[in-house]
Amino acid sequence: MARSKHPEETVVKILDVAMRLFVERGYEQTSMQNIIDGLGGLTKGAVYHHFSSKEEIFLAAMDRVMAPGAERLRKIRDAEGMTGREKIQTMFENGARGVDSAFFSQADPELDPMKNPRMLAAEYRDLFDVSAHELMLPAIEQGVEDGSIQTDYPRELAETIALLNNLWCVPAFFPARDEEEQRRRVAFMNDFLSAMGLEIALDPRVSLETWRRRCGETAQEDDGADACADARARR
Amino acid sequence: MARSKHPEETVVKILDVAMRLFVERGYEQTSMQNIIDGLGGLTKGAVYHHFSSKEEIFLAAMDRVMAPGAERLRKIRDAEGMTGREKIQTMFENGARGVDSAFFSQADPELDPMKNPRMLAAEYRDLFDVSAHELMLPAIEQGVEDGSIQTDYPRELAETIALLNNLWCVPAFFPARDEEEQRRRVAFMNDFLSAMGLEIALDPRVSLETWRRRCGETAQEDDGADACADARARR
Repeated sequence: MARSKHPEETVVKILDVAMRLFVERGYEQTSMQNIIDGLGGLTKGAVYHHFSSKEEIFLAAMDRVMAPGAERLRKIRDAEGMTGREKIQTMFENGARGVDSAFFSQADPELDPMKNPRMLAAEYRDLFDVSAHELMLPAIEQGVEDGSIQTDYPRELAETIALLNNLWCVPAFFPARDEEEQRRRVAFMNDFLSAMGLEIALDPRVSLETWRRRCGETAQEDDGADACADARARR
Repeated sequence: MARSKHPEETVVKILDVAMRLFVERGYEQTSMQNIIDGLGGLTKGAVYHHFSSKEEIFLAAMDRVMAPGAERLRKIRDAEGMTGREKIQTMFENGARGVDSAFFSQADPELDPMKNPRMLAAEYRDLFDVSAHELMLPAIEQGVEDGSIQTDYPRELAETIALLNNLWCVPAFFPARDEEEQRRRVAFMNDFLSAMGLEIALDPRVSLETWRRRCGETAQEDDGADACADARARR
């Protein structure tokens, strides 16, 4: 069997193709054969040489999508010369989800979490393990110590922020019916954060851009726009 | 093939056995054959006579578990002579999740949502569609009108309450490490509700009871207790 001279390129190609399929049609609806078919020329043997199962591809692909953002946020968490509050603010400005929100906007606008439960579960686990406990909690604890954040519940605050920010505010996991609704979620988040002792201001622009991209409102993707309109009409 | 004289009893038996398996070991890890095996005597043909797939059984079983609670909450929503705030308070006292919290405490204490993504996705969908939009939102809107609730964001408030209450506060979906942590979540929820204009007080007792039952702390189920201790030790 011919082996690629650059095995890493092969792995990246497999992960790219697989992730696109997982996001577009859902983990459950994607078979190993679909992934192989999408690789245009790579043999089944080449894929199984690197990954023993779809499950393994999924975990590696999720990790690859999440890792760069998480690394960026880890640097903010460990930065010198910032208060805890400034760190959280900066984390939000750098996409607190630890993943480019553009990524999830590729998902089928009609994606029903019931049809892609695996993706939802992966995000659900990561938002607690990574976003809340590993990234935000240390910054919030620092903020309590340096006086920039007022809360008796650093852990609970980190968890609820991550839950609302990483699922509720993300169009792929809970599509807003229109731009105004997406904007209201960000405004509500700001009220929530401030009421819970974390005086920061989220900028609705990132959130709206993701929503627009997902709904194809700025773009040429008419299919996307139609699907979004359909989704809105069904409600 | 011998047909049961009481088809409803057969259906109930199938749904009971299936749901126990889905909760205990996860939807993905339960096969049609497991369900048939658990029915002690019922044939494959009898099961397929009523349900064409595991998927269909799952949806019917979830509906059966959720329906009585939802019906109870619908009556509160439509009650005469209560303010909106009183309705939300009463909903919480009647288990705002629309399902006996005891039910989810049957789940494997080490249940990882990644291993039971389907159950998570079903709860995720229901918490928005049923708990937030169908049950709480009308009561919150009434509260805004009658002056008992102060918010500019009735829809966002209903959605975030449901998200926090139905996932974050439920031991099956996000186990607390100990009783104190479970108690802190309820206290945080109370602060959150009051800060967002909904002056009600959640009683931590129900939440703690569920946690205890799940962790076998009051009960004879030593296996459960061990598993919970293991889960805590691993963190």
